[in-house]
Amino acid sequence: MDGDQTNDVWGVVDMVPDTNFPDIRHKAVIHSTNGSLMSIPRENDKVRLYVQLSEKDVVDPGTGRVSKATSSPEKILEVTRKTLHPFYISPLSGVEWWTMYLIGQRVASRFSVEDRVFIAGDACHTHSPKAGQGMNASMNDTHNLAWKLVQVLRGWAYPSILRTYESERRKYAIALIDFDKRISALFSGKPRTSDNEDGVSHQEFLRAMETASGFACGTSVHYGPSVIINAKHQYCAENLVVGQRMLPQVFVHAADARPVDIHDLLPADMRFKILIFLGSMEEESRVVEINALADELSSPTGLLRKYSMGGRSSSPMFDLITIVAGKKEKFNYLRVPMVFRPHWSKVLLDDTDITGRKGGGAYKRFGISSKSVTFVIVRPDGYVGMVAPAAAMGDVHKYFASFLLPRHWVSRL
Amino acid sequence: MDGDQTNDVWGVVDMVPDTNFPDIRHKAVIHSTNGSLMSIPRENDKVRLYVQLSEKDVVDPGTGRVSKATSSPEKILEVTRKTLHPFYISPLSGVEWWTMYLIGQRVASRFSVEDRVFIAGDACHTHSPKAGQGMNASMNDTHNLAWKLVQVLRGWAYPSILRTYESERRKYAIALIDFDKRISALFSGKPRTSDNEDGVSHQEFLRAMETASGFACGTSVHYGPSVIINAKHQYCAENLVVGQRMLPQVFVHAADARPVDIHDLLPADMRFKILIFLGSMEEESRVVEINALADELSSPTGLLRKYSMGGRSSSPMFDLITIVAGKKEKFNYLRVPMVFRPHWSKVLLDDTDITGRKGGGAYKRFGISSKSVTFVIVRPDGYVGMVAPAAAMGDVHKYFASFLLPRHWVSRL
Repeated sequence: MDGDQTNDVWGVVDMVPDTNFPDIRHKAVIHSTNGSLMSIPRENDKVRLYVQLSEKDVVDPGTGRVSKATSSPEKILEVTRKTLHPFYISPLSGVEWWTMYLIGQRVASRFSVEDRVFIAGDACHTHSPKAGQGMNASMNDTHNLAWKLVQVLRGWAYPSILRTYESERRKYAIALIDFDKRISALFSGKPRTSDNEDGVSHQEFLRAMETASGFACGTSVHYGPSVIINAKHQYCAENLVVGQRMLPQVFVHAADARPVDIHDLLPADMRFKILIFLGSMEEESRVVEINALADELSSPTGLLRKYSMGGRSSSPMFDLITIVAGKKEKFNYLRVPMVFRPHWSKVLLDDTDITGRKGGGAYKRFGISSKSVTFVIVRPDGYVGMVAPAAAMGDVHKYFASFLLPRHWVSRL
Repeated sequence: MDGDQTNDVWGVVDMVPDTNFPDIRHKAVIHSTNGSLMSIPRENDKVRLYVQLSEKDVVDPGTGRVSKATSSPEKILEVTRKTLHPFYISPLSGVEWWTMYLIGQRVASRFSVEDRVFIAGDACHTHSPKAGQGMNASMNDTHNLAWKLVQVLRGWAYPSILRTYESERRKYAIALIDFDKRISALFSGKPRTSDNEDGVSHQEFLRAMETASGFACGTSVHYGPSVIINAKHQYCAENLVVGQRMLPQVFVHAADARPVDIHDLLPADMRFKILIFLGSMEEESRVVEINALADELSSPTGLLRKYSMGGRSSSPMFDLITIVAGKKEKFNYLRVPMVFRPHWSKVLLDDTDITGRKGGGAYKRFGISSKSVTFVIVRPDGYVGMVAPAAAMGDVHKYFASFLLPRHWVSRL
């Protein structure tokens, strides 16, 4: 693995605190001249404290190495108290768990060999453990790999799709570690004061922490172009960035006006989801256009039958979700052509729910026109793979043909 | 039991429908010249249909009595089709369950004998089964009884509290049946048309259905004055009607700004909840007033110690929840006197959550002043038992003394 170990040493304690620090139930970062401290509220009144230590507290004088044997929770709490001054803090009934660590920031040069051996998680990247980045990055590694493996093993996709595992996840690991270095430097730097005008300002720190949460929860991940990421028609849904996670958005079911978040309709079930933004169906010319598209889609050479079993007009490889720009009080979902509504729950309206507090405004927010049909193709892991206008159906065919096998080539496993 | 049986006969079928009726996934009432029909969407694409039948369809010519043997799901579906015309409807794969019934509207003259024998549910009231009214009324009967029994058996309350079971629940049963009669008449009446201007109008029907949902879900229940319902100081929280269920309202925790619905802090755990609306704590004079109240409450003759074990300043019979008129960004919950915050999660702010979409405006909505302290006493079953200004502490003492035993009289069971 390529990379370094930083000089920062951190202690960690889990405990139920007795304290007069008013933000103890918030996630809090204290940046003091004594060092930094991060406090994270946990279950059952517990908090986890990450406490920056100095080397002298933890280096074993015999070996010159950092060792848990040379430290103790009491030592960590002593530093905590200084950093948190003038507030007091003590364990209410002892320290429940503790550890200490140095931060190694390294990334493996390869994540896979011959599309047959794959490594994930700590095996290919290490960095600061704060905020669960390790866990989150690892789960996203294996989630990214799993659906590709399944599609290949089922005979749906060409094995070449597996190459995108390394290209997507290694790029992310490098970005995460770059960011981790920058934020570690902020933590280790002294705060800006009148005596130290070059120090780290509060605003600078806050901005970095906000970016950090995008890394930790995965919303900042942006995969580059590949067989499964095609941004050619980005203009038709400007704010659904191809290569990023599908944005959360509440719609209402056309049939019963109940609200649903689009992510609840995008389970990790190994299928590509094709969101079909039909636009408004108020004008007759639009209905004609939509009916023609329905005929095209379900024709023998249409997208659905191409990847279906036995010539059916639905495919086990896709899930279709139809989103109409219409009002729940007026719109009759039976007007949507059958091919676009495999089930009543798959037809959504871009409207608020009956409380008026949820849903609505998605066309505008996503930058999608309500006067034409737009496809948003969401990968099995929830990332936007392609957006395209219905007029560019040829490109949609090409997109899928670049990694999916037509169904008449394969039999069910 | 006193009461009658109506002449209405209803058939019920559960099935997954094949239909072009666009509102099939909504709760729908169809009021046609052929009779009425109520459709309720269920799990797994199923619907339940309540279909008004005519006597000739169901009376056994031999006995002259209504009998399931003289009807069938096919007959009910035949009526359904006529009522639903011009829409079609058929079971997709058969009828899953069916029944038919006449509506008996009766109420028992007594719900209890000698505070020792109690009857609940169908044993003391029968009415239309639509919309789960029977189930809801029965559960509320036993919920009403259970906490009173527990309080008596634990030695917390005088047995006289048990008399309120009949006074509260029999009054409700009578109101429910009165209402059931009115709505049954609407169902049986013909719709208003140009040929029948005296018929039931759509608006009339809709209004009645809206009232019905208050009965079905229990929000319309209003218990009258008793030892546990005291409306003397209603003016200090005008919109929290004493005798009605506590209104739902989102607050944020002062300690971590996370939103919580007040009902999640009012579990059915047999304890009275005392919501203390402290008002604003910005002015120093208010802090002085609040500290004085804290001293009074926890003094040897104060409310808490009166009902506590071994002279402690907290009581197992009460749960205290403190609600401050303050902003989450500014308010430090450590400023609230200890007696008002047995745990950090018990201090709430009347403010929005970080999304700005939940919470806020409760003082105004409830009609409570933020310039003085107001008590809202919520019974173990979630009904408002009393509201009172802190200045009327004597009345709060009297309220509890009318049904609770001071703790020094009793030992723990």
